[in-house]
Amino acid sequence: MTPLCPTSPLSIDSISLCVKRAEYAVRGTLAIRAEEIRSELASGKDLNFDKVINSNIGNPQALDQKPLTFFRQVIALTEYPSLLSDSNLPLTRQLFPSDAISRAKVLLEEIGSTGVYTTSQGILSVRKHVAKYISERDGHPSHSDDIFLTSGASAGIQTILQLLLSGPRDGILIPIPQYPLYSAALSLLNGTPIPYHLEEVSNWSTSLHSIKTALEKTKSEGTVVKGLVVINPGNPTGSVLSDFQISQLLKLCESEKILILADEVYQTNVFHSPFVSFKKVLRDENRKVQLVSFHTISKGMIGECGKRGGYMELCNIPPDVREQIYKLASIGLCPPVSGQIIVDLMVNPPKKGDESFEIYDKEYRFIYETLKDRAKMLENAFRQMAGVECQGAQGAMYLFPRMNFPSRFIETAKKLNKPPDEVYCMDLLNSTGICIVPGSGFGQEEGTYHVRTTFLAPGKELIDRWIEFHRNFMENYGD
Amino acid sequence: MTPLCPTSPLSIDSISLCVKRAEYAVRGTLAIRAEEIRSELASGKDLNFDKVINSNIGNPQALDQKPLTFFRQVIALTEYPSLLSDSNLPLTRQLFPSDAISRAKVLLEEIGSTGVYTTSQGILSVRKHVAKYISERDGHPSHSDDIFLTSGASAGIQTILQLLLSGPRDGILIPIPQYPLYSAALSLLNGTPIPYHLEEVSNWSTSLHSIKTALEKTKSEGTVVKGLVVINPGNPTGSVLSDFQISQLLKLCESEKILILADEVYQTNVFHSPFVSFKKVLRDENRKVQLVSFHTISKGMIGECGKRGGYMELCNIPPDVREQIYKLASIGLCPPVSGQIIVDLMVNPPKKGDESFEIYDKEYRFIYETLKDRAKMLENAFRQMAGVECQGAQGAMYLFPRMNFPSRFIETAKKLNKPPDEVYCMDLLNSTGICIVPGSGFGQEEGTYHVRTTFLAPGKELIDRWIEFHRNFMENYGD
Repeated sequence: MTPLCPTSPLSIDSISLCVKRAEYAVRGTLAIRAEEIRSELASGKDLNFDKVINSNIGNPQALDQKPLTFFRQVIALTEYPSLLSDSNLPLTRQLFPSDAISRAKVLLEEIGSTGVYTTSQGILSVRKHVAKYISERDGHPSHSDDIFLTSGASAGIQTILQLLLSGPRDGILIPIPQYPLYSAALSLLNGTPIPYHLEEVSNWSTSLHSIKTALEKTKSEGTVVKGLVVINPGNPTGSVLSDFQISQLLKLCESEKILILADEVYQTNVFHSPFVSFKKVLRDENRKVQLVSFHTISKGMIGECGKRGGYMELCNIPPDVREQIYKLASIGLCPPVSGQIIVDLMVNPPKKGDESFEIYDKEYRFIYETLKDRAKMLENAFRQMAGVECQGAQGAMYLFPRMNFPSRFIETAKKLNKPPDEVYCMDLLNSTGICIVPGSGFGQEEGTYHVRTTFLAPGKELIDRWIEFHRNFMENYGD
Repeated sequence: MTPLCPTSPLSIDSISLCVKRAEYAVRGTLAIRAEEIRSELASGKDLNFDKVINSNIGNPQALDQKPLTFFRQVIALTEYPSLLSDSNLPLTRQLFPSDAISRAKVLLEEIGSTGVYTTSQGILSVRKHVAKYISERDGHPSHSDDIFLTSGASAGIQTILQLLLSGPRDGILIPIPQYPLYSAALSLLNGTPIPYHLEEVSNWSTSLHSIKTALEKTKSEGTVVKGLVVINPGNPTGSVLSDFQISQLLKLCESEKILILADEVYQTNVFHSPFVSFKKVLRDENRKVQLVSFHTISKGMIGECGKRGGYMELCNIPPDVREQIYKLASIGLCPPVSGQIIVDLMVNPPKKGDESFEIYDKEYRFIYETLKDRAKMLENAFRQMAGVECQGAQGAMYLFPRMNFPSRFIETAKKLNKPPDEVYCMDLLNSTGICIVPGSGFGQEEGTYHVRTTFLAPGKELIDRWIEFHRNFMENYGD
């Protein structure tokens, strides 16, 4: 590295403060250390364990979740259309079911090639399928003009925040704990996060009281509250909102003129109560509130994170603002085409009677049941661990247990000048190869400590390693 | 649409001014009108032409460019790995060459599934291949740590600008004419564009004098110049820089402490002189200047726009800043996996002796020769048109002819309160279905008018329609 004068445009002292201040713990220090350990293991270093288990991020196919067969068949055929040529078709028919072949043909008819920039809003026929899916889910009409396909939910969320925020006077209500995309995006856009606390004792429910308190305080400080972020089902908490709770939030936001960003990416990951969308309740009650809701192909039973696909639906957003969203989308050119295709398959999967239905249905149910079982198993493990309290897993892909650390451990961490939950996570990683994220990365009530882990890891290995680690930990530090 | 009070958070009066001010002509009014006409034609409306020709954007596969066969074979195999199972392999071998099969296996070994989030910087083995490619291209070492895979070049450029800019006091030198991503991104980030004019008379060359003049003026106004954007080969101009010109720019930026953003996405689209990278000259001369260069899979002979893939290479950027870039990348999770795979294939294509080499080489050369021929043909067409002056096509995918409009036409446009070049482009679109972009979308010397068109369209249809339109146009308005 050539030594550079400190006034170089890209030195740590000269870069944007907004960037420097942004934090994103899900892929922070712990994830970087996990990669180092993985390299150490690969180069033959002898450790107490033989592999790293990444439970820090909801990345299902990086653990053992298999992609849905039909989806990948369609993608392969659209990527290499020669398989559909007259000369190849007899062989192709031996490798692919007829409905995958016909679906690929329909898609190629519409888009030409997966190598094109599509319209920036996303392929029209896909948007029409999304609108139909939403209409059927909610029992209220949805229109393809209000659907924007995105490169995953994160990209859509950042677009809407970019429109909403003009500077530090503009604030967005975000839950604590939250998925750190929100605080990071607010940092980058120089907006003000307005935290409201979820209620841990009642399964991390969204407290209207907490939102109202945050709102009053903020207004008195001169901040303009532009939006309310609700993550339902919750990340990192796994909580699921009832229609009554949603109704209360809509009512508040209507009277306060606050836009709702409904992060509904885990809408199919619900284990006990059904998922109710914000859009449904909004239309049921005809609320005059602005809403943008987000969905993704990365979660649910699909788990196609690497495709970068999703959509957002605008509700009560005027056409001239929609044009501005279109402009922002067009600066990014278009979402990845295979991600757009997976959105199409997600909202329009094989139906009863289709050749692929049986296998699709079986795979889908298997993944669903597996996730539900793993959530329960991990929850039970936490209940066995001394000093750990865990709310029940209602949905999403995570548990966020509370860690009542021994006071001796808290003092040790303080001496290291580090948050105790971070020290715990780093010790766990170094001792067992299990990578999770400290609660401080998501926000937590002052004086409480948590960790977030996905429940995606298969088998009992993670649980056994963790229980043993925790037992030793408590023996070391217990009072 | 429910009527909304004007204080709604997303109304045209309340949204971010930075967003509202941003312009992106390549997909602006004309592209939207082109879509309308396409719908009209689809619904049977009788027009003077039977199809829209999109020459407004470099989207090769939307015209008639075919994807490279080997690339798509590897993608299909990685997307549907069942094709590689023991039971399917005998059939698969009849449909796919052995080197595509072995390449897919190697890639899957590294990434597991195309459905995973990869590391945010991009798959390590792909970055290693990129570094090797750059080393061989330039004759100087490149390291995988300095390579970031991106969702196309645009995403990388926006990341670097986001790091560089802290507010309107920070400025970036951009060429006029420019690819409007730069002005749009500067708008969104509230930075100041500092225009420098390219010299039309000498094939749109980059004028050191013009940059120095812009620099002095800007400094006297208190703006801090953080970066210099150079697009080489040029968009929209097609010009190609010599190593001498690059050397001069490096020297200037070294002494002024300005970072260079080298947009080298058209590096393989050069027809006469060879492409020389900024990195090569920087290392040849051991300049202590910071450089970030960008490449893509969307252009060149690959044209895989819909995959959203590319990379950037950092040069003389300290590790603590690289960590900040990693953090920004991680907020976006990861680039699309199939885009990353195409980057791998781009920098490491079939080699002499490989089963697929012959067909790959033939396809590659065919596309190259076709583009070169089309550029020449269109250039010649412009030279036949009255009042049109066109610099020679040296590279990239565009021509940017100067339109010396009759004064009667300029007056007519003024009465419509619209830029004459925009009126011309809209008339051309409505009369012929040819969609191009007015020079005002890229910037041009006061009092001059241009249009930008790709030379991707096949056959003589575009040329014939345009020549006829222009003849009528000049007859209507000619003095």
